Amino acid sequence: MNVRLADLAKQINADVVGDADCKITSVAALTKAAPGDITFLTDKKYRKYLSTTKASAVIIHPTDLPLCNKPAIVTENVAVAFALIAAYLHPISKAVPGVHSTAVIGLNCSIADTATIHANCVIGDNVTLGNEVEVAAGCVIEFGCKIGDNTVIHANAVINHDVIIGREVIIHPGAIIGSDGFGMANQDGKWIKVPQLGTVVIGDRVDIGANTTIDRGAIEDTVIGIGVKLDNQIQVAHNTQIGEHTAIAGCTGIAGSTIIGKHCAIGGMVAITGHLQIADYVQVTANSMIVNSIKESGLYSSGMPIQKNRDWHRVSARLKNLDDLAKRVKQLEKQLELIRKS
Amino acid sequence: MNVRLADLAKQINADVVGDADCKITSVAALTKAAPGDITFLTDKKYRKYLSTTKASAVIIHPTDLPLCNKPAIVTENVAVAFALIAAYLHPISKAVPGVHSTAVIGLNCSIADTATIHANCVIGDNVTLGNEVEVAAGCVIEFGCKIGDNTVIHANAVINHDVIIGREVIIHPGAIIGSDGFGMANQDGKWIKVPQLGTVVIGDRVDIGANTTIDRGAIEDTVIGIGVKLDNQIQVAHNTQIGEHTAIAGCTGIAGSTIIGKHCAIGGMVAITGHLQIADYVQVTANSMIVNSIKESGLYSSGMPIQKNRDWHRVSARLKNLDDLAKRVKQLEKQLELIRKS
Amino acid sequence: MNVRLADLAKQINADVVGDADCKITSVAALTKAAPGDITFLTDKKYRKYLSTTKASAVIIHPTDLPLCNKPAIVTENVAVAFALIAAYLHPISKAVPGVHSTAVIGLNCSIADTATIHANCVIGDNVTLGNEVEVAAGCVIEFGCKIGDNTVIHANAVINHDVIIGREVIIHPGAIIGSDGFGMANQDGKWIKVPQLGTVVIGDRVDIGANTTIDRGAIEDTVIGIGVKLDNQIQVAHNTQIGEHTAIAGCTGIAGSTIIGKHCAIGGMVAITGHLQIADYVQVTANSMIVNSIKESGLYSSGMPIQKNRDWHRVSARLKNLDDLAKRVKQLEKQLELIRKS
Repeated sequence: MNVRLADLAKQINADVVGDADCKITSVAALTKAAPGDITFLTDKKYRKYLSTTKASAVIIHPTDLPLCNKPAIVTENVAVAFALIAAYLHPISKAVPGVHSTAVIGLNCSIADTATIHANCVIGDNVTLGNEVEVAAGCVIEFGCKIGDNTVIHANAVINHDVIIGREVIIHPGAIIGSDGFGMANQDGKWIKVPQLGTVVIGDRVDIGANTTIDRGAIEDTVIGIGVKLDNQIQVAHNTQIGEHTAIAGCTGIAGSTIIGKHCAIGGMVAITGHLQIADYVQVTANSMIVNSIKESGLYSSGMPIQKNRDWHRVSARLKNLDDLAKRVKQLEKQLELIRKS
Repeated sequence: MNVRLADLAKQINADVVGDADCKITSVAALTKAAPGDITFLTDKKYRKYLSTTKASAVIIHPTDLPLCNKPAIVTENVAVAFALIAAYLHPISKAVPGVHSTAVIGLNCSIADTATIHANCVIGDNVTLGNEVEVAAGCVIEFGCKIGDNTVIHANAVINHDVIIGREVIIHPGAIIGSDGFGMANQDGKWIKVPQLGTVVIGDRVDIGANTTIDRGAIEDTVIGIGVKLDNQIQVAHNTQIGEHTAIAGCTGIAGSTIIGKHCAIGGMVAITGHLQIADYVQVTANSMIVNSIKESGLYSSGMPIQKNRDWHRVSARLKNLDDLAKRVKQLEKQLELIRKS
Repeated sequence: MNVRLADLAKQINADVVGDADCKITSVAALTKAAPGDITFLTDKKYRKYLSTTKASAVIIHPTDLPLCNKPAIVTENVAVAFALIAAYLHPISKAVPGVHSTAVIGLNCSIADTATIHANCVIGDNVTLGNEVEVAAGCVIEFGCKIGDNTVIHANAVINHDVIIGREVIIHPGAIIGSDGFGMANQDGKWIKVPQLGTVVIGDRVDIGANTTIDRGAIEDTVIGIGVKLDNQIQVAHNTQIGEHTAIAGCTGIAGSTIIGKHCAIGGMVAITGHLQIADYVQVTANSMIVNSIKESGLYSSGMPIQKNRDWHRVSARLKNLDDLAKRVKQLEKQLELIRKS
């Protein structure tokens, strides 16, 4: 593609400063860009590269404009502008509609003419696929699933029976949606499986990362709200609810029946135990441990950052005895008080 | 299904209090139940809903019976009763036996007439599948595997060569059983692969969660005992042994050669290092870190729960210097002792 | 196989002490070995089994030789010698070259005559597979991928479009290489996907564990250096770089754009946040939390090992107030100083 800078800016309703006629073919990072590329500045620590980038144009915040000697698209939200321009310059080619001859399709399915089912997919009975749905190679979609328009399911993903997925959803490779929840009742030391009778309901415009697993509900459903973004290898246990537009980074695990609010941002490898409530607009840094409900929005953290191993051994030994240390401090305070009074 | 309450109670050898003839069609949660449903009370904090539930009947512990104005099944173990009744009212339909035309079957396999192999499965040479085994779509079972009666393997799971699986096992989608262990020897800074010559042996009535991975042994085998229940995304490294009837929640990782006892209950996202021994009846809360053997049964924990980010920053800085703080307290104690003696 | 001890020793350029003609058929662990087996001693705590092992021969370090009454292969690096001898005695049988009739191959592919593509694989357009590449059943390799000689891709793995993989690489089952990175820009509370335009480049002799995920780069590429060894269920986010001969154990997560040095050894379930730099030869113990760059080689750790639950509750409560405790100690020091001066 070869686009005038002015035409790119028009796509996102932004202004151009400088040569509006310069031609752009691709996006690139500040330090790697070549002529023909458009680059962007979101992180102040890369400002120093603005003067030396070989890009033909830059997407930039108004405050950085004085530092910029290139044609620029000026916008309050550089990250969004970059996302939109990158998508415009590098469109994903639409799949050719149709069902591959090696795909196995169940009885009584409703598959839109504009949907694409790639090689070696297996679709169960009574499945509905909306307009322009794309199911990549090797996927299994079990009976009774309903999948909304324009949703894309990547290779070797599994959608278990009766799962409901909205429109414009992206499910990355290897994700498992609707496996049985981990429900066990203990009888005389042995575990008896509790039937998992609910399903998973996924809203519109949700993204689900590679090898992420979302279990179906035990009686009621597991619910993923509109616009939720889940990274890779996240575990979502049965009956979890995730509120609209919440984003969660990779490797985080959420135990059963926890309700997470809207517009939360949760870092990677966070452990969240079951039956909690997390308010809207909560942010949690990576590797935190959440064992109680969070009632107020705000930024939360926990975890012990690394030290040299020998220092950690010392700290670790002291930590084990922290209760004792606190009692000794209390004792010192009492003794000192006695001395001061005497 | 439409069953008399008395007949349901009979299924599980429990007593009915109230109208034994009321008709039950389904199970439901206390607050969501409608007429025709049977519900249950396991958690005291939901007692308040007993009086308002619209369910036709309740499964209940004798101590809660005075609070209940509905027909009731009364039992000491409500969770187990619910599991059994839910399974009875909502039976899983048995697969039709046979091998799908798209499945690829190796040479010299022994596949029971009552087994079901779904579309696009690939079964290697010399595989044995017992009676009523069901292999869902897209699974790969490599050469030499032996799989016991009534075991179900869900979609896109992989069973690597020569793995032995017992009876009534459930393997959830995307699980990988028998991949090579992470055995590497270092020669002059480069890693050389140590052949992984053992296999995985899985006992009867084991459940293995979605996308869980269990590596084959290096020389000897990785062994999962009878009745073990593993949740999703658990990593079990080579030569691990997990004792009978132990349950482990999602995202927990177990390093190589660790031996876990019987009847343990281990929470989610627990890190367990290698070559440890964990006694029987050990319980571990979520997100704990196990770096030493546990010799006594009991409840164990670790981890730092979240705080507001600014509080965590303060605690974190103090924690780093905890050894120094402890030394200062020691110093204070000495000085105070001198003062008191003077 | 039935090999003279002298011939085995010759394979690895090591010396024999004792009966060089004894016949070896297999490898086994010290305590499980039978006549005909060769065993090995790497861990001093197993020295006691040297005198009772039933193995016909032992691979041993010179310092342990005096304790050994068996024919022995003597070497400075027992682990490497064992790896090489085990591989020699238990060779992996080479796949028969060819493309299975159920595999689906795209247009314009370049597939070596010596490559093997097993049942139900789906290979996209313009894919290059080198000599003796083996693609196990159920794999999906999307368009534009290039895979070097002797690389093995195990069952149900997914290689997304345009990924470049070197020679002698092993990709274990269920691994996902080249899924979209987790790039999102926030506009008025909603997340907009940032196109992920880079790819993944994997060097020669890399191992990638079962169900591990490696995301493609956002603009530039995600790069895995020569000889890197990744265990199961590792998450490698977009634009990460991992230096040559670094090994990482299972369940570790690496956030975006982090650069890890060469010859590092990183334990399991380590959380590594984004945009960090980790020096060469850094070692990190399991379950550590890395939130800052590491500039010097060395051994690093963090994490709180388990205690009895009631002790942890006490420590945990104290930890929350550690800043306050430190201030109280400071106060005590001041007061004591006043008393001493008075």
